[in-house]
Amino acid sequence: MLNEYDLWMQKRKITAAINIPEIVFAQDGGEITNQAVMEFTNGIQRLLGFSPKERININSGQTERQAVFLGLFPEIKKLVSFSCMEPGAEGFVIKVTETNIYIAGHDERGLLYGVFRFLSLLSLGQISYGFELGDTPVSPLRIINHWDNFDGTIERGYAGNSLFYKDGHFDFEIQRIEDYARFLASAGINRVSINNVNVRANAKLLITEEYLKEATVLAAVFRRFGIRIFISINFGAPYSLGKLPSADPLDPAVIMWWKNRAALIFKYIPDLAGFLVKADSEGEPGPFQYNRTHADGANMLAEALEPFGGVVIWRCFVYNCQQDWRDKNFDRACAAYNNFKPLDGKFNKNVILQIKFGPYDFQVREPVSPLFGALKNTRHIMELQITQEYTGHQIDLCYLPWVWEDIMNFDVIKTGNDEKNRYRVRDLIGPNKEGTANIEGLAAVVNVGLDRNWTGHTLAQANLYGYGRLAWNPSLTAKEIAGEWSALSFGASQAAQKIEEILLKSYPAYEKYTSPFGICFMVTPGSHYGPGIEGYEFSRWGTYHRADLHAIGIDRTAKGTGFTEQFSADNAGIFSDPSTCPQNLILFFHRLHYDFIMKNGQTLLQNIYDTHFEGYDEAAQMLELWKTLKDSLESDVYKSVLSRFERQLANAREWKDQINTYFWRKTGISDAKGRKIYE
Amino acid sequence: MLNEYDLWMQKRKITAAINIPEIVFAQDGGEITNQAVMEFTNGIQRLLGFSPKERININSGQTERQAVFLGLFPEIKKLVSFSCMEPGAEGFVIKVTETNIYIAGHDERGLLYGVFRFLSLLSLGQISYGFELGDTPVSPLRIINHWDNFDGTIERGYAGNSLFYKDGHFDFEIQRIEDYARFLASAGINRVSINNVNVRANAKLLITEEYLKEATVLAAVFRRFGIRIFISINFGAPYSLGKLPSADPLDPAVIMWWKNRAALIFKYIPDLAGFLVKADSEGEPGPFQYNRTHADGANMLAEALEPFGGVVIWRCFVYNCQQDWRDKNFDRACAAYNNFKPLDGKFNKNVILQIKFGPYDFQVREPVSPLFGALKNTRHIMELQITQEYTGHQIDLCYLPWVWEDIMNFDVIKTGNDEKNRYRVRDLIGPNKEGTANIEGLAAVVNVGLDRNWTGHTLAQANLYGYGRLAWNPSLTAKEIAGEWSALSFGASQAAQKIEEILLKSYPAYEKYTSPFGICFMVTPGSHYGPGIEGYEFSRWGTYHRADLHAIGIDRTAKGTGFTEQFSADNAGIFSDPSTCPQNLILFFHRLHYDFIMKNGQTLLQNIYDTHFEGYDEAAQMLELWKTLKDSLESDVYKSVLSRFERQLANAREWKDQINTYFWRKTGISDAKGRKIYE
Repeated sequence: MLNEYDLWMQKRKITAAINIPEIVFAQDGGEITNQAVMEFTNGIQRLLGFSPKERININSGQTERQAVFLGLFPEIKKLVSFSCMEPGAEGFVIKVTETNIYIAGHDERGLLYGVFRFLSLLSLGQISYGFELGDTPVSPLRIINHWDNFDGTIERGYAGNSLFYKDGHFDFEIQRIEDYARFLASAGINRVSINNVNVRANAKLLITEEYLKEATVLAAVFRRFGIRIFISINFGAPYSLGKLPSADPLDPAVIMWWKNRAALIFKYIPDLAGFLVKADSEGEPGPFQYNRTHADGANMLAEALEPFGGVVIWRCFVYNCQQDWRDKNFDRACAAYNNFKPLDGKFNKNVILQIKFGPYDFQVREPVSPLFGALKNTRHIMELQITQEYTGHQIDLCYLPWVWEDIMNFDVIKTGNDEKNRYRVRDLIGPNKEGTANIEGLAAVVNVGLDRNWTGHTLAQANLYGYGRLAWNPSLTAKEIAGEWSALSFGASQAAQKIEEILLKSYPAYEKYTSPFGICFMVTPGSHYGPGIEGYEFSRWGTYHRADLHAIGIDRTAKGTGFTEQFSADNAGIFSDPSTCPQNLILFFHRLHYDFIMKNGQTLLQNIYDTHFEGYDEAAQMLELWKTLKDSLESDVYKSVLSRFERQLANAREWKDQINTYFWRKTGISDAKGRKIYE
Repeated sequence: MLNEYDLWMQKRKITAAINIPEIVFAQDGGEITNQAVMEFTNGIQRLLGFSPKERININSGQTERQAVFLGLFPEIKKLVSFSCMEPGAEGFVIKVTETNIYIAGHDERGLLYGVFRFLSLLSLGQISYGFELGDTPVSPLRIINHWDNFDGTIERGYAGNSLFYKDGHFDFEIQRIEDYARFLASAGINRVSINNVNVRANAKLLITEEYLKEATVLAAVFRRFGIRIFISINFGAPYSLGKLPSADPLDPAVIMWWKNRAALIFKYIPDLAGFLVKADSEGEPGPFQYNRTHADGANMLAEALEPFGGVVIWRCFVYNCQQDWRDKNFDRACAAYNNFKPLDGKFNKNVILQIKFGPYDFQVREPVSPLFGALKNTRHIMELQITQEYTGHQIDLCYLPWVWEDIMNFDVIKTGNDEKNRYRVRDLIGPNKEGTANIEGLAAVVNVGLDRNWTGHTLAQANLYGYGRLAWNPSLTAKEIAGEWSALSFGASQAAQKIEEILLKSYPAYEKYTSPFGICFMVTPGSHYGPGIEGYEFSRWGTYHRADLHAIGIDRTAKGTGFTEQFSADNAGIFSDPSTCPQNLILFFHRLHYDFIMKNGQTLLQNIYDTHFEGYDEAAQMLELWKTLKDSLESDVYKSVLSRFERQLANAREWKDQINTYFWRKTGISDAKGRKIYE
């Protein structure tokens, strides 16, 4: 049965198709190797009920009849030959013979990941004699962003308070942090930023000695699991903390202040990954206030970190958040590209731009940001959101790998239909290569908190797992990940298969009852849960649909705001024409009359009605499917998820009825199928 | 020049038309009399720069050539004859002869009010030899409600934190409380409820010894100024504080708990006015949860207070705040009448119902609640709101006596056009008479806080003053009060006249740019400042306008929700017919097509456009008028008010443009006058 706390690493006796040797030989190594060995023996204990014993000298093992060998690839390949490719950075190979098990990492992290993968595959029943697997992560950077505040709250957190902070200070249970680090590493995560990108109140003190001393404890736990930490800093720190008159990135006093500060920080955390910076964004300070560019700002920080091997991750979520809704020429969707494309090539080598996947802000359906593919001389990564800010607050189930798969498959660079001239997002993900549009990895805002099940909604655990797996290998499908997670969590069972089915239903259902066709921001202002159809219609946030009695949407073609022109020529063409534009984005790119005929031959209006009725019905089906699991699941898990499905259905009903009523009131046109629309 | 702190009691040397004697004889009396004498001498000092000396034996004064005589009417009339009527409860007479000044109260409070009135009239230049005035307050109860929380915040407060509390405890500057009590008494206030009607957190402890000890200090200050305090209590206190299993008003243990609690409270504050209770309202506990009536609940508390002379003020703001917007039959406007009319006559003699002036909640324009005139066997008062929750947050100027005058003039009971069959609200205000619809007074949520000028917007001081004056005499006009307040505050001057003019412009302007024609709740949800046209359209609060492409509004006639039928027959007829319904309430009572022809011959839609353009223009005119006062006013006063007028104009612009755009998008019909409406 499921112990929610244990996520996808359940203590559940399995029947293995192989004998697991009782002796482990491990190559001498550092603390990550030691952790890997411990994870192996504990993992076998968890799954098979016994603990293999470790022997000290790996070479002596060659004479053992039955043994496990854990080490780095050059050492292990002396013991056995592999038919799979040599692993790359952080990769591993696994080989299982009639007598022995070999797990070899390219490096210590690779070994740890190999051990976790072996245990996972063992649990899934996929290990047999003769098994061999080599795997190397596609993304060098697989980052988790915490939006945790020092007061213990989490911005956009839906699973309890912070794991790290309380009442203005570090405050954590060390065992819980270790467990967290284990879960992240087992999903392949190798970086964690530990504080909110909005660096306010006591978070500004994180770069002072008092707080750094405590941060070292956290860093040490993560380090054993191969995870390096980032610190989010406030660009205004030189004046807010340092009492300098400014934070001008070209001011020598400011430059010196950051250099000294970097030296201090790295004294405490020598392997700090670097800084994460939200500047000139939604009211945060930044270089604009000194008439400097983002390159000026980021490079100044990068120079301070460079001697210590740190990088600056600079967020591209920069837009005018004091927009006038009356101004129809200005389009927030254009902001990231307009702000950062002209700076391509102007950033230092240890600056990495972090670009939200879409031009808006983690909406249910957005096009992929045109910055991907366009930036060729600047290191960059893609930002996703695991925490369900716009996707149901972990009350509603919304299995995010569903949409991430679409993002990974988007043809960023497309010239004609020739396959070799197509580059999908997943094709671009990989190590930095100068002069290419390579994306060095993914970052994502995490969905965990102090709730015992980590994620509030138990099934939202799949999103955390799925993010890690996808960052490792962007070619994995949503279905593959759902199957893996369900079986790991619930055991190979009919229940797991039904849960996989529910997961795969959830995103299309959520999209349909909330925001089909790429319409965005019809949500309750502030909270972002539940419908607020005109909630952002006259606000300063620049997110309008301008529905009137005839039409809805923004014309973002060359005839409108011109946003389509930021894409490669082929994509611009596809998006610009309503007949070729993907239907699920058609209202993102076009202003359409309600009687516009969609691909299914029905009007846009009828499609709006249909999708909302369908989405509600699908939410109802998920609830019914869940009810069939009553006798297959732990009662507390069953009930807690049940109550969320019930709340989701109530939410879906509000969405369906409010949206349909809204458009009925706008148009006076009834549903062609005669279903109930309230006046 | 204006000292904002001193409100309408400015220290400003005047030229009096009479000689003020330098000797004061005062009748022996209690502490209110002593306060009255002190107020007289200090007031003369403030206005004329010298302090009359008090002699002890009033009878010896008969031989003095020139003297002031302060005392109770029976004593003073031995000294001089009055041609005006004998004062009633809390009333006074003033007489000025060539040699003497006589101020006589019906009682000690009356004397204090007489002194304040004399000083006010002296300051206004209205006292001359031969002057005689008798005045008695029309409302026995002239109540201020504080919505102050113990954490120091004020619910719907726009002028800083609480005068009374901070961090969970009483925390006040005694001098400031004394000044506050003086200002209130000078405006005629005789009751103050000292804590928020939503009794949460530490406010629940107010009825425990620890907090009562501190409350006595506050009560003592108010007492000297003739003001008795009310305490807001939580109906659930027997279980939340007393640890009883319930708060059922018919449970003997609960009854006993409240009796003991009352005894304790009155031990500390023997002249406590009583309890103010918000029960079964917006989530607060109440008798409904035990299947008891409001009469059961109120009477139980009343019996506990009765031995000590206390009353229970029971709020009628009871409605379903979990309404389903889909349900068009349920109408929140009907709630107060439906809940309380059937209970008429069932309340104890020391229960007073507090009824909001309108059926909704302090909207810019509502009809007067049909409970007034309908309740004939239950004591009751009317609740107004001085704090500008829906009327501009003391950022926008909105002179409230303007609308209060309309409320006072509303024909509550009307049978035909015969004057003697008409009873306006102001005709009903007066002492309780069994079997009549008399209204025993007014209560109002106050607009003050720790801001140095008390009310945030300096000109909002006029609303506090105006409330007191109107409660005293509901027949005063908004213009009379504005003239009085402006002259008292700014001295008899051109500036004062301009400020009076600005005040009188402000309400119509605010009504026009926000919510003309009685349309309600088009405000930002939660904050209630700025437009949120569909902000409450699908919410649980029961406040809908249901605008579609053809029409807007709720049909509240007998053919619709039937709300009109709660009024007297004549009023029901007037409101039910769009051709007789007052235009400023037409959208409160009717659902109208946009092409409905209003009295001015223009369509409803054109009237919507026109009013919003006009309201904005009038806000602009107020700003321009204010600018002409630059050289006539203290610089800090000028600037602080100027900045608020600038913010008001920005707010008015949002209202104008958003509302006009909204209706343009609904209808596609342009402004007949071709003014700019944004698409």
